[in-house]
Amino acid sequence: MTLFGTAGIRGPVDEVTPALALAVGQAAGDPDTTFVVGRDGRETGPALAAAVEAGLESAGSDVHRIGEVPTPALAFASRGRKGVMLTASHNPPQDNGIKLFANGVEFDRDAERTIEDRVDGDGTLESTRWDDWGRSAELEVLDEYRDAVVTYVRNQFDTADETSVDDAPTGNETPLDGLDIAVDCGNGMGSVATPHVLERLGADVVALNANVDGHFIARESKPTPETLSDFSAFLEASSFDVGLAHDGDADRLVVLGPDGDAIHEDTVLAVVAAHYTAASDAEDPVVVTTPNASARIDEQVRNAGGRVERVRLGALHEGIARERRAATADGDTAVVFAAEPWKHIHTAFGGWIDGVASAAVVSALVAAAGDTETLRDPVTERPYRKVSVDCPDDAKADAMAALETDLSEAFPAAAVDTSYGVRLEFEDASWILVRPSGTEPYVRIYAESDGVDDLVADARDVVEAAIAASR
Amino acid sequence: MTLFGTAGIRGPVDEVTPALALAVGQAAGDPDTTFVVGRDGRETGPALAAAVEAGLESAGSDVHRIGEVPTPALAFASRGRKGVMLTASHNPPQDNGIKLFANGVEFDRDAERTIEDRVDGDGTLESTRWDDWGRSAELEVLDEYRDAVVTYVRNQFDTADETSVDDAPTGNETPLDGLDIAVDCGNGMGSVATPHVLERLGADVVALNANVDGHFIARESKPTPETLSDFSAFLEASSFDVGLAHDGDADRLVVLGPDGDAIHEDTVLAVVAAHYTAASDAEDPVVVTTPNASARIDEQVRNAGGRVERVRLGALHEGIARERRAATADGDTAVVFAAEPWKHIHTAFGGWIDGVASAAVVSALVAAAGDTETLRDPVTERPYRKVSVDCPDDAKADAMAALETDLSEAFPAAAVDTSYGVRLEFEDASWILVRPSGTEPYVRIYAESDGVDDLVADARDVVEAAIAASR
Amino acid sequence: MTLFGTAGIRGPVDEVTPALALAVGQAAGDPDTTFVVGRDGRETGPALAAAVEAGLESAGSDVHRIGEVPTPALAFASRGRKGVMLTASHNPPQDNGIKLFANGVEFDRDAERTIEDRVDGDGTLESTRWDDWGRSAELEVLDEYRDAVVTYVRNQFDTADETSVDDAPTGNETPLDGLDIAVDCGNGMGSVATPHVLERLGADVVALNANVDGHFIARESKPTPETLSDFSAFLEASSFDVGLAHDGDADRLVVLGPDGDAIHEDTVLAVVAAHYTAASDAEDPVVVTTPNASARIDEQVRNAGGRVERVRLGALHEGIARERRAATADGDTAVVFAAEPWKHIHTAFGGWIDGVASAAVVSALVAAAGDTETLRDPVTERPYRKVSVDCPDDAKADAMAALETDLSEAFPAAAVDTSYGVRLEFEDASWILVRPSGTEPYVRIYAESDGVDDLVADARDVVEAAIAASR
Amino acid sequence: MTLFGTAGIRGPVDEVTPALALAVGQAAGDPDTTFVVGRDGRETGPALAAAVEAGLESAGSDVHRIGEVPTPALAFASRGRKGVMLTASHNPPQDNGIKLFANGVEFDRDAERTIEDRVDGDGTLESTRWDDWGRSAELEVLDEYRDAVVTYVRNQFDTADETSVDDAPTGNETPLDGLDIAVDCGNGMGSVATPHVLERLGADVVALNANVDGHFIARESKPTPETLSDFSAFLEASSFDVGLAHDGDADRLVVLGPDGDAIHEDTVLAVVAAHYTAASDAEDPVVVTTPNASARIDEQVRNAGGRVERVRLGALHEGIARERRAATADGDTAVVFAAEPWKHIHTAFGGWIDGVASAAVVSALVAAAGDTETLRDPVTERPYRKVSVDCPDDAKADAMAALETDLSEAFPAAAVDTSYGVRLEFEDASWILVRPSGTEPYVRIYAESDGVDDLVADARDVVEAAIAASR
Repeated sequence: MTLFGTAGIRGPVDEVTPALALAVGQAAGDPDTTFVVGRDGRETGPALAAAVEAGLESAGSDVHRIGEVPTPALAFASRGRKGVMLTASHNPPQDNGIKLFANGVEFDRDAERTIEDRVDGDGTLESTRWDDWGRSAELEVLDEYRDAVVTYVRNQFDTADETSVDDAPTGNETPLDGLDIAVDCGNGMGSVATPHVLERLGADVVALNANVDGHFIARESKPTPETLSDFSAFLEASSFDVGLAHDGDADRLVVLGPDGDAIHEDTVLAVVAAHYTAASDAEDPVVVTTPNASARIDEQVRNAGGRVERVRLGALHEGIARERRAATADGDTAVVFAAEPWKHIHTAFGGWIDGVASAAVVSALVAAAGDTETLRDPVTERPYRKVSVDCPDDAKADAMAALETDLSEAFPAAAVDTSYGVRLEFEDASWILVRPSGTEPYVRIYAESDGVDDLVADARDVVEAAIAASR
Repeated sequence: MTLFGTAGIRGPVDEVTPALALAVGQAAGDPDTTFVVGRDGRETGPALAAAVEAGLESAGSDVHRIGEVPTPALAFASRGRKGVMLTASHNPPQDNGIKLFANGVEFDRDAERTIEDRVDGDGTLESTRWDDWGRSAELEVLDEYRDAVVTYVRNQFDTADETSVDDAPTGNETPLDGLDIAVDCGNGMGSVATPHVLERLGADVVALNANVDGHFIARESKPTPETLSDFSAFLEASSFDVGLAHDGDADRLVVLGPDGDAIHEDTVLAVVAAHYTAASDAEDPVVVTTPNASARIDEQVRNAGGRVERVRLGALHEGIARERRAATADGDTAVVFAAEPWKHIHTAFGGWIDGVASAAVVSALVAAAGDTETLRDPVTERPYRKVSVDCPDDAKADAMAALETDLSEAFPAAAVDTSYGVRLEFEDASWILVRPSGTEPYVRIYAESDGVDDLVADARDVVEAAIAASR
Repeated sequence: MTLFGTAGIRGPVDEVTPALALAVGQAAGDPDTTFVVGRDGRETGPALAAAVEAGLESAGSDVHRIGEVPTPALAFASRGRKGVMLTASHNPPQDNGIKLFANGVEFDRDAERTIEDRVDGDGTLESTRWDDWGRSAELEVLDEYRDAVVTYVRNQFDTADETSVDDAPTGNETPLDGLDIAVDCGNGMGSVATPHVLERLGADVVALNANVDGHFIARESKPTPETLSDFSAFLEASSFDVGLAHDGDADRLVVLGPDGDAIHEDTVLAVVAAHYTAASDAEDPVVVTTPNASARIDEQVRNAGGRVERVRLGALHEGIARERRAATADGDTAVVFAAEPWKHIHTAFGGWIDGVASAAVVSALVAAAGDTETLRDPVTERPYRKVSVDCPDDAKADAMAALETDLSEAFPAAAVDTSYGVRLEFEDASWILVRPSGTEPYVRIYAESDGVDDLVADARDVVEAAIAASR
Repeated sequence: MTLFGTAGIRGPVDEVTPALALAVGQAAGDPDTTFVVGRDGRETGPALAAAVEAGLESAGSDVHRIGEVPTPALAFASRGRKGVMLTASHNPPQDNGIKLFANGVEFDRDAERTIEDRVDGDGTLESTRWDDWGRSAELEVLDEYRDAVVTYVRNQFDTADETSVDDAPTGNETPLDGLDIAVDCGNGMGSVATPHVLERLGADVVALNANVDGHFIARESKPTPETLSDFSAFLEASSFDVGLAHDGDADRLVVLGPDGDAIHEDTVLAVVAAHYTAASDAEDPVVVTTPNASARIDEQVRNAGGRVERVRLGALHEGIARERRAATADGDTAVVFAAEPWKHIHTAFGGWIDGVASAAVVSALVAAAGDTETLRDPVTERPYRKVSVDCPDDAKADAMAALETDLSEAFPAAAVDTSYGVRLEFEDASWILVRPSGTEPYVRIYAESDGVDDLVADARDVVEAAIAASR
């Protein structure tokens, strides 16, 4: 059974049932491991968390219940142990999901497969002796997590010229001093972290929809231009320096300008990546991102003295691990940042996607630049297209195999990378990515270029020909 | 010592200290009484709540800690026992305060004096035997309180033509269906109740500043035109049917129109009073209010078939009790509503000021009327003035005594009420109230009239003359 | 599937699994019902309680977690709602079990069958909509329960000659004054209730094994002469007035004399039954017991002016309900007590088996009598035998049918009752009960008589003949 | 004001009031320090703990409430932060007290004086800014503490011949295997730790009075031959290998033989001291004890290759610190154990007095020796006397000054130590200690010798003469 999609285990609660949660808990637990179990504000969270707890404990693990928290706070609390988060992130309220963490990092594919195999078995895991079953205790982690984000960002934006001679922690106490920020928490778990953290860092903060509510009463959990329309109107009618919006469990961050328009997620990513690259002491700073992310990231990172590596979507943590293994040979390589659009891993803070930390770091960059316009100014945003070409599932493999050759022949000037689909990069930072959809009968073409329409048209011809030949 | 002002015990925490909270707890507790102890979101709340708990328990009371709640939820939970709320309501964040409740109603003046006398003593209350000291337990009341408000309002606005034959609770499940409401919780405790309650009643709700924060990071706790400017801008830029705003502990409610302008508090009061009067089955429905409240209330209540009684500011609960005692002789008198500006007691729901219930009831009235304009339309708003005339403290008593005669002679057409200062009411619903300030060297003149400036000028002459004669 | 035996759902935790507990919770819960969930001190309790909670909540029920409590405290807390207790009572530590309560009374057979049917279904109960799923809260009930037992016993043993004129609660504050009691809690849940309750009632109490421990480290959970040997030695070496012992969840009570010998469970039952009968104001006081209980109970109850009714083992609550229904016609019938050996329902206190209340009531009877010898003195204890006769399962029905006639013919002097097996009662209070085993290939003969061996020999001949004829 | 006696702050609760607890909390807290706050089972504990919490938080500290725990568990939890324990140890139930810890060690005299000075001030400590006040959270430490004791003792009594090659934790899992232990917890906090820990280490455990009860219903909290009479009778009537008894907060341990007689506290101390000395790898192992402790300790430690250092009563932690400072110069000195009668600091485990760890270590030594007789056999117990000689308070200083010379002249064969009174040690391990009482008008003579009566008579003459000369 394939339990884990790119987003972990996620779906309506007549699929992600308490019985499944119990089975996953039993598959994940063992007498030598303690788990933290948290949840977002969904109505189905308490029951599913109890089911996971029952599973973990009957497999021998002790459980610390940490209640309603942002996903990054759960990840933070899983350091030195393991963790389970009940969340469907930005899905609608009738869904829920299960995310597993070990030592601050999401389970990698191998660990997920072990769980799948055990859940699949005959339903009767080798049972744990009754006197090895675990117990539960309540644990409050929110204060500690918020303190950690505040301290991290203070130290990141320490503007002191010289090192202080005393032992006191250094760092700029108020890097956001004077900044007016509006945050739309979307009735999600960011409510209990982001406004507080920004205020502690010196900002004046007004929050929209910071009442945690499992019905997502104000807007859908997923932040899009449509769901953020109230927020955009509010920003436009007021005079904030920047607007920030989260999804339901605060791993995602959307950044909006004072005019209420969202700043492109790849631009945000490029700006943060450039910051971390420039700030790094390493000789070879690396930024990990995904194939669908814009070449503007590469431009910015290169300008700041670093390089970009890509990894398949939903597997940033595996990319970080890969780069770190590679780096062992060369001590002066460091992964300074890893991100896919909207989702950022601040590697010096921790190995998890953290929208709260992103909110604070982006705000500090706005404060340092003066305004959002100045901050984004160095980034060139080229026109972008995403196109779907019909392709039967059983023709995908042949078509993609053919396209590795066909596309490089059709675009001889481009550098070709076939790790995750076929990605072509041009001298002028134009790029095109062709990959099969994992869930629908399409081959997708992503492209970004000043002449994007011509580029897509040319590619489409090649793709359609290859598909036709593969039927 | 005068601990209790019109707002109970309230002030900066170097006055409202843990030592004072401990003493008040010891003065209030006894071995036969259980207390609920709650607090708003202020930074000093946990310490003061612990101090009250220590006092109560060492006086013999058991304590149920209910954590961070709106004041009306604490009052609700105090039914059948007693309660202490740590809150400074709309005061700035460096203040805190102590409110005492018995069986859902604030302590009356006699009960407050008993506490004052005990705290005053020699600091050593007769101590409770060690084996009579109390214990504490956690208690969750928020869900029950929110359910109670929802059920109350559903039943209030039951539009069913005929009584249902089955046993199921009747009531209109969604009296707010289709209503777009924005709520500014001001980082206060309304955050955890009002948006949820409104949504359960059928409204689409967007919340501003519903992140509880003891620093009141977004705006001052007291809702005024200035502090609500962000909220007004948001309303104006959007298309909500109504805006609602709370103070820090959600006893107060401010109502704003779709244009972002606040509806006058006396108009809101008049509309709700008229609703309760009209809905009452009693032959003699009574509304209790305070001397500073507008004659438009009297107009509306009279039109709806009821009458208004006034009681000194801050003593609505004592007014209710007085009217109820009077009503015993005449079974068909009922106190249907009691309110001072912004603060409403929904007597059929409970004997406490309840801004959450007000938010729901006002919203239901807007829904029933169609829009705020239609709802307020029957209420005539006359120009209003408030003027302060210098008067030494030691001249106040003589001046006020003289003014009882002087003012009635100067305005022979007016009906005179001298219960709380001197209040004159005219045929055209104009009125004027003259009373000494309790805390400053002034006599105050309040007036409301189409010809308010002339009225005030005339009254001022009389007042100044009386003061001059009393020095 | 037959989930429920005479002792509810009970067995090793590889049979009573978290998955089963989840299914039972889902079968029992619904959106209109709140449950309390408690557990005894077993190692597997936290996981199973979490599983039940997950089931109940996903079926729509809200859950109050009450933690580790005696079973009677869970029953007490289930008044006005429902309850689930995770306990295997006196079973070994590797077992656990699930008991269901509604409004203070164990589920009757019909309610159990409804659960069985739902669990049996196709594993997919009709699922509850996501927005009807329930939540959990912690609730502390132990203090309230202990207070209730103390108040009940005080009022039971009120020795005041005249009714007090004031409003204060009456009752003898210290009915156990001067009594020295030793209690062996067997590492079970009686530890947190019985010693405390006895001390509040005035006794001097020494407790053995009052450390709750899911391994039952000191002795097996089931109190027998063997497992109580340490306790007996302690009693013999000291000078206590009475010894009391519980099983793991404190529904059972064993009473021991100062010499360390257990007083026969039927004698204890008879003494308590006589007390309640004599104390009753009803014209027709009824005691409900089971077929295996001694005729000495009938003797004592008769002498005290009441009558005994019997009901099948494990169904006292159903017997009470039956008698109460019958009583409706005759207003002056009252069920004053219901018990099977070791397990007592104090009907005026509540409808559940309560070993804690039994400990207090028996102690008060000892205190009133002066010592255990005086208390038991009126009860005649006749020799007792229990014999098993081989009988194939498929011959049981025919043999029992034949025995209804054969036995009454063989013992013409006896009154015959065939409700639960064949029970013969003689003039001199001798009795004999013949019934098939529910689980093993035997027919059992129970007899109590001064000439018990002859009586059993005679009966055995009749039984063996009937079985031979039925093969 | 002298708040702290040798036993910290302790007394009836009309002296150790909530107001005092609040003041001590305010004096001890600061915004940079987190405290754990625990309490024993006394009735007045919840109120006093709440008062301490209020004080700490209003001084800026965050508080983790750890509830009812043994004092050593609070000390354990105070590592890396600070801690406050509400306990009056073995005092009667109407008393309570306050103990302060920093990083696992009781406050030393300097730290206590700082608290006294602040509490003394003018009652108004420099107040902490409202936004620096602290918060509280619940924390469960009992499981972690019990695990730590179990692991410590397993590793202490690791009998493996060679180091295991794998990564698994080494240590003898069941050093108490086969040992029958009875524990009298005296209704104190040892109930929740000692029986469990001993069972985990392999023993068969029966517990007396392991129901935590603030009335100490079974026996006085202080374990003495009189209060342990029930326990002694139980031991004598049964066949346990060893009996163990605690005081109310489980810092003290009394050890009894199978016959129910207590083993002398100095003998227990000597045996444990010898064990730690022999087991130490250090070249210069040191045992710290107090002047009133027997020379048999010195004998045993000397035989095991170590030396004994003495420090004033109630200041073992200061003695450890002193020895460790001294040891810095000589890296091969180690404090392996520190104890006064009944109270042991297991220095390799932690810097606090720990009766639970003592129970486990002593049991392991009994198990290793085979029985208590064999264990105590090497220790020579000489007759002991304690005599009080009248001496006015104002004569004490002169008398003691004179006695330094007088006694050494009177007993020229003895080695003299005048650090804490005058202590004389003889070749044959006889010793005598003369010191003024801190609280009463006496000079005390302690002596231990085969000819103790002659020795005391001789010393008494010298002492009386010195006092007479000092009046």
